[in-house]
Formats: sequence, C-alpha cells, structure tokens
Amino acid sequence: MTSSMPVPYAFFDVLADAAEKQTLRHFRINIAIDNKEPDDFDPVTDGDRNAETAIRELITQSYPTHGIHGEEFDDVVGTSPFTWVLDPIDGTRAFISGLPVWGTLIGLLQNDRAIIGMMAQPYTGERYFGNGSQSWLQDKNGTRRLKTRDCFDLHDAIMATTSPKLFKAQENDAYERVESCVKLARYGLDCYAYAMVALGYMDCVVESGLKAVDIAALIPIIEGAGGVVTTWDGEPAHNGGQIVASANARLHQIILDTLSNRAGSRLLRT
Amino acid sequence: MTSSMPVPYAFFDVLADAAEKQTLRHFRINIAIDNKEPDDFDPVTDGDRNAETAIRELITQSYPTHGIHGEEFDDVVGTSPFTWVLDPIDGTRAFISGLPVWGTLIGLLQNDRAIIGMMAQPYTGERYFGNGSQSWLQDKNGTRRLKTRDCFDLHDAIMATTSPKLFKAQENDAYERVESCVKLARYGLDCYAYAMVALGYMDCVVESGLKAVDIAALIPIIEGAGGVVTTWDGEPAHNGGQIVASANARLHQIILDTLSNRAGSRLLRT
Repeated sequence: MTSSMPVPYAFFDVLADAAEKQTLRHFRINIAIDNKEPDDFDPVTDGDRNAETAIRELITQSYPTHGIHGEEFDDVVGTSPFTWVLDPIDGTRAFISGLPVWGTLIGLLQNDRAIIGMMAQPYTGERYFGNGSQSWLQDKNGTRRLKTRDCFDLHDAIMATTSPKLFKAQENDAYERVESCVKLARYGLDCYAYAMVALGYMDCVVESGLKAVDIAALIPIIEGAGGVVTTWDGEPAHNGGQIVASANARLHQIILDTLSNRAGSRLLRT
Repeated sequence: MTSSMPVPYAFFDVLADAAEKQTLRHFRINIAIDNKEPDDFDPVTDGDRNAETAIRELITQSYPTHGIHGEEFDDVVGTSPFTWVLDPIDGTRAFISGLPVWGTLIGLLQNDRAIIGMMAQPYTGERYFGNGSQSWLQDKNGTRRLKTRDCFDLHDAIMATTSPKLFKAQENDAYERVESCVKLARYGLDCYAYAMVALGYMDCVVESGLKAVDIAALIPIIEGAGGVVTTWDGEPAHNGGQIVASANARLHQIILDTLSNRAGSRLLRT
C-alpha cells in the first residue's frame, strides 16, 4: 500500500506525534481560551495553534510543493496537486470540558479528492487512519483493520450529531426526520463520531455547518472502512457544509432520501 | 486516610480490576444486547452481568456482613451498616456506541450516607476515587488530587446532562432555564460528566430519572473534590431521582434556585 501512496503512513505518525506534544500539554492542565467570535462560543487554545505550527513546519520541510489549509493560520498555496487539510483540535468543546473525544485531524487532498486521512486522539492513544481503500485503528491493543457495520435499516442505526440544537429552522425538520427513525442518537462528538462509524460501532453522522478542516481527513478513513461520506445533496464532502457519513451505500441513500423527504426511501427500507 | 476507612482503597482497585476483565472483553468487540424493556432502548450486555457477578463474589468473600445493591441482580441484605451500590457499566449507550465515556461505578453506603466511591474507565485507564473528604484520579499519568473549579456564575459554567430530550414536560422548563444560562452544555455522558466536575473541567450536571446505582458511587468523589450533589430539592442524592451535581456550594444554590425559579437566584449571581 505504502508504495502507491504519495505520502507514507509513517509521515502521518510523525505529524501526529508533533501535534500530540502540543495538545497534551494543554489537555486537562491549563487552558487559555480565546473567543474568535465574541458572540459565539468557539474556544481556541494555545495547544491548537502550537500543534498546527508544528505540523506545518514538518510538512513544509518534507513536502515544500504541497499546499496547506489549516484551521488556525493562512493558506499556503502549493505548486503540486497535493494540499494538506489540518485541524489540530477538532472538538474544542470536548477538549475544554476534559473529555477524551476530540481529535487531531490530518488530511491530504489530491486535487479535489481526499485521499489519505488520520484522526489521532492522544489521551486515549488512538490513531484512526485510512487511504480510501483500507483503514486501520492503532491503539494500546495493537493495530486492527476497520470495517463499517452492515446496518441497512435506519431503525437499527446508531446516529451521531454535534448537537440537535445546532440546525437552522429549515434544516431541523430534515434532521429530525432522520433522528426520529434511528435506534439511538449520540451528541457532542465531532470527529470521534466519524471514527466510530469507521470502527463499526456507529452507523451514521448527520451534521451541518462543517468546514473543510472538520471533514476532509475523515473521508478516506470512512471510505476505507466501507462507508460513504457526502453532502446532504449527495455531492463530494471535502469542502464541508451539510454532511452525512454512513456505514454503507444503502444506508446512505436511505438517509439522503429521508433528509430530502423523498418517498423512495420507504422502498429501500427492507 | 486508609486507616479510618471501613474498606481500604486497595479493595476498590481489586473490584475494578475484576470488573474490567469482564467489561473490556465486550467493549468494541462483540456485544450481545438484550432489551430489558422491549419498548424502550436499554441495552444490557454480558459484560455488565459478568462484571457484577465478579464484583459481588469478591465483596461476599471479604465483607460477608455487607449488603449489596446492584443494577443487574437482586439485593443482598446485609447485617452491618454497610451496603455496596454497583453499576458495572454506567453509560451502556456510550458502551454500545464504542465511546470510552462509560464507567464502572462502585459505591459504599454507611447507613444512608455514600461514604466511598470509585468510577473506573478501563479503556482509557482512568480511576476516579473519593471518600467525601478527598478525591483522586489515577491514570496513565500517575495519581492526582481532584479539585472542583471556582465557578460561581452560571454564565461561566460548563454543564452536562444525559440528553436534553429525556426530561418530562414539567421538568423540561426547569432544565431549560438552567441550560439557557450556561456557557456550554454537553450531552451523552452519564457518570463521566460527574468525573469531569470532580476533575474541575465541568461545573455542573443536571439530570432526572437516575437510579441509586447511577449516582451513589459518584457522591463521595464529587464531595471529596469540593463539590455538592443533591436532588433538585436539595435533599440527599444517594437514592437517585432528579439530581444536581455542582462544583461548589454557591453555584449549587444558584442552580437549585434556577430550577425552582426562585427570584433569589439573581441576587446570588455576582
């Protein structure tokens, strides 16, 4: 696998190691919180900024022709088809609450396609990694291949969303049509929910208002485990927006149909 | 400390070790889910039952005069003032979703007072422990004393609740009065939220419909870290019901006042 990849797996580990040194210094220790938007609660920590700086330096050293798009700093425009998409602490609300369900997101785009991604949770020691064809979890128990679940009925599905209160009025009806069908809904997870879909323990994530940095790294992990990630309209997800991630194509179509209220969804629910 | 305790700390570790062998065998591996109540989603796993059996055997061997009240099996009536209150997997919804925010709850009552408690999260390797006077977290980074946060204004508080959709109509208004004031609300955490209050990273938990096994073990941990746990009416919490846990007595009173819509709460918000 590694030979056909434009960047080896080991380099993602190097980046995650560098990020971890910065983020763990601040997790459950001492956080300076700035509000980027005074009227909206959006905490950014020193750990976030320092981790992104560390990752950017390593990328620039090893891949000077690559572009970089990160949460915290200005874009670097590359001279190759490759662009890194970075969010050092996805799930800042979990982070400041002491919860180990945030993650460091490191994604690589080739032109407009998310081809490799890692989600690292340094406190638990988990690293989820995928290249669109295969995905793995490396944790204290070793390394295992990831496989999404064979859940083909929304009524059997475990769903996640950041918060059911985040949807705007017109979106909320669509979202509630899905949530009202699922077996169980979980809130407050951000990237960790997508990792659980890849791991085969959740079946779908339905969110809106995502940025590219929130989702790009997760696409190759979900796809490599057998899942599907698109916008609510079925378009490519790497730029963010309204996002659905599902354990498989059949469940994904049911969710898209339910969101858009297409009658066809009933036929698919076997 | 240990000398004045009717049961040494080390015995709680023995119980948590025994429970962990059973719960981790099922976490993210292979779960047989039974529905105790067919119309309500309440998963119970083999891990839950096997862990409680293991804990009960050890208690009966070492403390044959103690009573036992657990989630999964019938009560053992003791001949001493001491009763163990057990929930091997608190947060079964998190457990079946692959999320490491469930916990094993082991509490000890002396007559009607919760005097010692442990919350253990075996995947992350965390053990929160308190005796009402002092509390600690033991994790991969070592052992640290726990201290709740000096948060005295609800507008600065991070709050948790299992789900904002669990409250009944009349409770919901009271709950929403609190949530509408806080800086940040987190959902889906069960016992892990109480641990975060003791750790000083969350400031309050507001819930209803708790059972004794959901809360008894957590009371000495919160209290030992400087926090307060009561019912919404300010009564002892060890039997469950409508529960508030707060980082300190001043914040606690503000929350009780806000829940009951007493005007005095405004005076206390300095």
